[in-house]
Amino acid sequence: MGMIGGGKDAFIGAIHRIAANMDGQIELVCGALSMHADVAQESGRMLFLDPERIYNNYEDLFKAEAQMPADKRMDFVTIVTPNFAHFAPAMLALENGFNVVVEKPVTFTLEEAQQLKQKVEETGLLLLLTHTYAGYPMVKEARQLIKSGALGKVRKIHVEYIQGWLSRLSEREGNAGAAWRTDPKKSGKSGCMGDIGTHAAHLAEYISGLKITQLNASLNTVVEGRMLDDDGAVLLRFEEGATGSLIASQIAAGEENALKIRVYGENGGLEWAQMEPNTLTIRWQDKPAEVLRAGSNYGGRLSSFATSNCRTPGGHPKGYLEAFGNLYKNFALTLSAKIEGVEPQEEWLDFPSIDDGIRGMAFINNVVASNESNEKWTDYTI
Amino acid sequence: MGMIGGGKDAFIGAIHRIAANMDGQIELVCGALSMHADVAQESGRMLFLDPERIYNNYEDLFKAEAQMPADKRMDFVTIVTPNFAHFAPAMLALENGFNVVVEKPVTFTLEEAQQLKQKVEETGLLLLLTHTYAGYPMVKEARQLIKSGALGKVRKIHVEYIQGWLSRLSEREGNAGAAWRTDPKKSGKSGCMGDIGTHAAHLAEYISGLKITQLNASLNTVVEGRMLDDDGAVLLRFEEGATGSLIASQIAAGEENALKIRVYGENGGLEWAQMEPNTLTIRWQDKPAEVLRAGSNYGGRLSSFATSNCRTPGGHPKGYLEAFGNLYKNFALTLSAKIEGVEPQEEWLDFPSIDDGIRGMAFINNVVASNESNEKWTDYTI
Amino acid sequence: MGMIGGGKDAFIGAIHRIAANMDGQIELVCGALSMHADVAQESGRMLFLDPERIYNNYEDLFKAEAQMPADKRMDFVTIVTPNFAHFAPAMLALENGFNVVVEKPVTFTLEEAQQLKQKVEETGLLLLLTHTYAGYPMVKEARQLIKSGALGKVRKIHVEYIQGWLSRLSEREGNAGAAWRTDPKKSGKSGCMGDIGTHAAHLAEYISGLKITQLNASLNTVVEGRMLDDDGAVLLRFEEGATGSLIASQIAAGEENALKIRVYGENGGLEWAQMEPNTLTIRWQDKPAEVLRAGSNYGGRLSSFATSNCRTPGGHPKGYLEAFGNLYKNFALTLSAKIEGVEPQEEWLDFPSIDDGIRGMAFINNVVASNESNEKWTDYTI
Amino acid sequence: MGMIGGGKDAFIGAIHRIAANMDGQIELVCGALSMHADVAQESGRMLFLDPERIYNNYEDLFKAEAQMPADKRMDFVTIVTPNFAHFAPAMLALENGFNVVVEKPVTFTLEEAQQLKQKVEETGLLLLLTHTYAGYPMVKEARQLIKSGALGKVRKIHVEYIQGWLSRLSEREGNAGAAWRTDPKKSGKSGCMGDIGTHAAHLAEYISGLKITQLNASLNTVVEGRMLDDDGAVLLRFEEGATGSLIASQIAAGEENALKIRVYGENGGLEWAQMEPNTLTIRWQDKPAEVLRAGSNYGGRLSSFATSNCRTPGGHPKGYLEAFGNLYKNFALTLSAKIEGVEPQEEWLDFPSIDDGIRGMAFINNVVASNESNEKWTDYTI
Repeated sequence: MGMIGGGKDAFIGAIHRIAANMDGQIELVCGALSMHADVAQESGRMLFLDPERIYNNYEDLFKAEAQMPADKRMDFVTIVTPNFAHFAPAMLALENGFNVVVEKPVTFTLEEAQQLKQKVEETGLLLLLTHTYAGYPMVKEARQLIKSGALGKVRKIHVEYIQGWLSRLSEREGNAGAAWRTDPKKSGKSGCMGDIGTHAAHLAEYISGLKITQLNASLNTVVEGRMLDDDGAVLLRFEEGATGSLIASQIAAGEENALKIRVYGENGGLEWAQMEPNTLTIRWQDKPAEVLRAGSNYGGRLSSFATSNCRTPGGHPKGYLEAFGNLYKNFALTLSAKIEGVEPQEEWLDFPSIDDGIRGMAFINNVVASNESNEKWTDYTI
Repeated sequence: MGMIGGGKDAFIGAIHRIAANMDGQIELVCGALSMHADVAQESGRMLFLDPERIYNNYEDLFKAEAQMPADKRMDFVTIVTPNFAHFAPAMLALENGFNVVVEKPVTFTLEEAQQLKQKVEETGLLLLLTHTYAGYPMVKEARQLIKSGALGKVRKIHVEYIQGWLSRLSEREGNAGAAWRTDPKKSGKSGCMGDIGTHAAHLAEYISGLKITQLNASLNTVVEGRMLDDDGAVLLRFEEGATGSLIASQIAAGEENALKIRVYGENGGLEWAQMEPNTLTIRWQDKPAEVLRAGSNYGGRLSSFATSNCRTPGGHPKGYLEAFGNLYKNFALTLSAKIEGVEPQEEWLDFPSIDDGIRGMAFINNVVASNESNEKWTDYTI
Repeated sequence: MGMIGGGKDAFIGAIHRIAANMDGQIELVCGALSMHADVAQESGRMLFLDPERIYNNYEDLFKAEAQMPADKRMDFVTIVTPNFAHFAPAMLALENGFNVVVEKPVTFTLEEAQQLKQKVEETGLLLLLTHTYAGYPMVKEARQLIKSGALGKVRKIHVEYIQGWLSRLSEREGNAGAAWRTDPKKSGKSGCMGDIGTHAAHLAEYISGLKITQLNASLNTVVEGRMLDDDGAVLLRFEEGATGSLIASQIAAGEENALKIRVYGENGGLEWAQMEPNTLTIRWQDKPAEVLRAGSNYGGRLSSFATSNCRTPGGHPKGYLEAFGNLYKNFALTLSAKIEGVEPQEEWLDFPSIDDGIRGMAFINNVVASNESNEKWTDYTI
Repeated sequence: MGMIGGGKDAFIGAIHRIAANMDGQIELVCGALSMHADVAQESGRMLFLDPERIYNNYEDLFKAEAQMPADKRMDFVTIVTPNFAHFAPAMLALENGFNVVVEKPVTFTLEEAQQLKQKVEETGLLLLLTHTYAGYPMVKEARQLIKSGALGKVRKIHVEYIQGWLSRLSEREGNAGAAWRTDPKKSGKSGCMGDIGTHAAHLAEYISGLKITQLNASLNTVVEGRMLDDDGAVLLRFEEGATGSLIASQIAAGEENALKIRVYGENGGLEWAQMEPNTLTIRWQDKPAEVLRAGSNYGGRLSSFATSNCRTPGGHPKGYLEAFGNLYKNFALTLSAKIEGVEPQEEWLDFPSIDDGIRGMAFINNVVASNESNEKWTDYTI
């Protein structure tokens, strides 16, 4: 694996490296870790990279790596630059024959995402979009449970993602992460909805298996002086008649990272909350609620999608980094299978990709358009 | 106390009697407990009423009781008939000089509620509207906390009331409570929003101290064959710039009585959930979350509104009936003070009354109107 | 009902009156509410008692009430004096033909309890011992679950009752409840184990259906200057080979009233905690954990012992006072049945009585003896 | 890093590799991964080891590695063989100048542990004993909180470690982990107490800062046919007058890995539970309970020992593997500092070592001796 962005002090780059590293099957071999040559060099050295494979920009990286023998060059590249700088390296990677891992949102605009999709399809290469929360075992169990029909036809989907870290004007107080996330030139046309609303929308569609068809959005910029939305709520209509809501906020003072989803079908409902991710609660209409726990199996009751994404038995908490690691693991297993010419298992193929990226960009567009409209409901368009 | 409605087999009548009875200060002395004379008589006997004070209709009751000497006749009457039959006896009670306790919603229409308000003001009599959830000590603490300014200016209010008991077409399966609640002739123009949405709206306004000014509602009738809404969501705007959401459902299969509220200010947020009512969680932006518990005092940290509504020390769970009993207790203490010509304590005066009833009826009207409108936001009007 | 003790300012007397009052089937008609005549009189007036039935001592009360006609005199008497003053009035009540409700511990010594048992058996009258926690619906469900064999043979029983209110020397700071509870002349030979350890032991035997046969106790007086134990732990052996532990403390600073029990059988375990009493968790070895909730029924899954002790549906929290009220309700229903000469239902008969009182007194004796012994295990003797 | 044991299919070896790998600072470079040459070879290849550094036994490994140039040879070796096979390779490692990581229990007998300690002191090399639970950030916070004196003098320590995975005779049903853990020849003189009781004892001493001085133990072999204890309880006395209890069980059907500790001081108590490890609850006697969360900082309120052991911000769950990784990280940072001749930070030095190993072996000896004694209390001796 190579890495673009993610130099020293970059939070998300470090997370990607831990996640990739976790199972001992992926090795960081090269990087263009910063747009500043000195930072790129120093960061590369701190990561024990071969000095010859520490590059000062991504163009050099692709050029050099593409010329290396197949058994030496990186198998894929991870792009962890700010949002506006995803598209160009991703395209160049694909053009040079490299598989791609890219942070969410996949690109800066929907149009770029569509171009990228075309390139992915042309080249037949793999792309992993790191919607981390889809990597948790009990999220996968939730999806399989809905799919199995056990809860009956889905009627309601309520998802919320509530944070408090932007309760103050942190972008003016030296918080670098706050600064670019609230700057429309770097982050895009939405702040809170782009940053975390997209995660919530992805989770809702991923677990329920239903796509949003209409929305009724209302965004707010609560903290004075901020340039983008930092809070909002969206009423949702889904395929097959389900309805629901999505609440996202970064100004809910005191909250950490409270992503939670509830899905109700005719026979019962499920609830999953990211901050206690190893528990999936199922409330049944006609029998006592059940609590399913990651790592347990209950004589085969849990799906293979849940069990294959656990590294430890029940009662050993699996955290955020492991969920992240599961994305990498499944991507890497699929990639290995492809390289070896064997059929990947269906569990391995269950990672977010370019189509999820397109949905994410479309969600941002649609939610912003709905917010600006006086019409109550607007169609979700791509 | 006298009672209109609430004969044998009526759920809510029994609840009112337990609540009124709890502190040994209120005695049921007469009743017109059913519109069917035989049921009225039998129910009265089962409650050990003086046979002379078991009436067959409320007109008789008021007539007879009004003629009794002051120290003998009932001090107030409780009306626990279905929604459509609240107004007439309430008016007659006031006209005959009796204070009134009435189940929520206060009347069948807003117009009736406004007439009733006029009568309350004319007569100077007391009216208690049993919004039970406002009787919980930690709800009162939450209100006082917001009032104290400790959380700073309120920014967000999210309230939800989620049940599953109408997941099926129970009104056709012999469930009497389901039958009248889903019948527009008996229940009014809204089902779920009228029955439980009003509780949620009341709680939001009560705790935050802010009134709803605009709303954007979307109601659903999920179960086929039902005559009224059984589910819905409303985006809300409040006074002073706060925004929020209200979710209500009676078709969320597996849920019991999940009323929950979160209010966020500039410095932190609070959370209270009815099913674990003795806990109030406060999450601070700059310090660890705190857990306040009903019955504890923490050296005076809790407000007198919380402590005066607890009958037992911390760690002894206070339930729904006690919250209900608190409404009666405060109403009765205020009434006693009035009778004795002394000033009631401010904690006693803190019970829902006709103004809350007006807000409740207006909420129903506004939410139904917004639902029918294609405009995104409609003004909350009375 | 009549009452001995429980004058104004007495905590537990007020609790008993609310509990007795709750269902509208029991009326307080007379009392000897204090050993001080003026307090007795004033307390009686505050409770609206007929002045002729406000007595200055319990001897007068029994004498006068016994002479009243059967349909006028009280049906039973409740004794809520401090521990040392339970025995004499209880004996006198039985001798005068009155049924008895008595606060725990039933007497001051085991010998008294045995004499009382003999009198109960001689007279054929009813005695209710208010082990409140046995009145919670989910405690009853737990007992029935064990009885049903669903968990298999019981192997382990861990019970704990942890409070913090005696963390300081409160008995010297004007806390009257602390003063008599820590005074061996009023409380008996044990403090913490007598006051709350007995509740824990009762709960363990009640739910498991197994009696303690041997114990290994270690008591502590943690707060300097205190006259009785305020903390302790006991290892336990039960009938049929089960083992376990009992922890009790009143000096665990910060704790409220944390009574909790876990029972493990061959197939799974159950957990119940008094501070969230409406939930019973069952963890199964081979399937997901289940959460049973008071007031729900799940199509008949819950036992009639649980459902008949709920006044409200699922999701409406039932608290400590309702559990207390259930003791009175079942006692009163049994008493009514007896008076009417019909067979009481088995659910009604499920209230703690003199045999539980004997076990409680024996527990205190045995735990104190074990503590004083250097032998590891001592037999539980009566 | 090199590894002894931990071949393919070995659970704990894989866990060690993930933990070591996590931060990208440690690389597995060699191994004697099995006592079976073919397994050792195949396992090494699966881990991409240099074929020349895949050894068939640990003697070969030390010999070969010791002869390599300093910048090439492994810096330390991890020993993950069954209990009985820890001592010999650990001694040999130290004799050959290698630092050591060893799974718990450090050796098979206390005598071996003492010899090992002597060797560690002689050589001045580092030894890490992987008491994983000491690696959780909120465990470290708990320790610092006690140390700070905020809770006052410690009075009570209750620790419990409850599992259900040995509820049946799994060792006869092909469960390899169960087989060696219940075999006295491989596991030692205690089963449950040795396997998990030692973790609980370590946690109690680590957090409280107090050593056990006396114990009163009762062990059980609940499942028929088992050769070692699978359940037990111990009453404890600590330095400075604190008392407490330790419960450990592997036959509590339905439980996963429920390690929990509560420590009470004069002013309040703390509670930490391994299955929700990111929360530390502090209950105060005089103010509301506080909930501290891993990854948050609260303006410097949390200690550097907690914050330096978090890889992600608050709300991003940190799991078991991260706690394990923290042990490796601190060990590696200390080792690096030593190699570079600089002073390690005090947070880095906070990892379990040979002294903890000695305490662990002594705990097993003492608990077994106490169990066999008829004396109630026996002194904890080393």
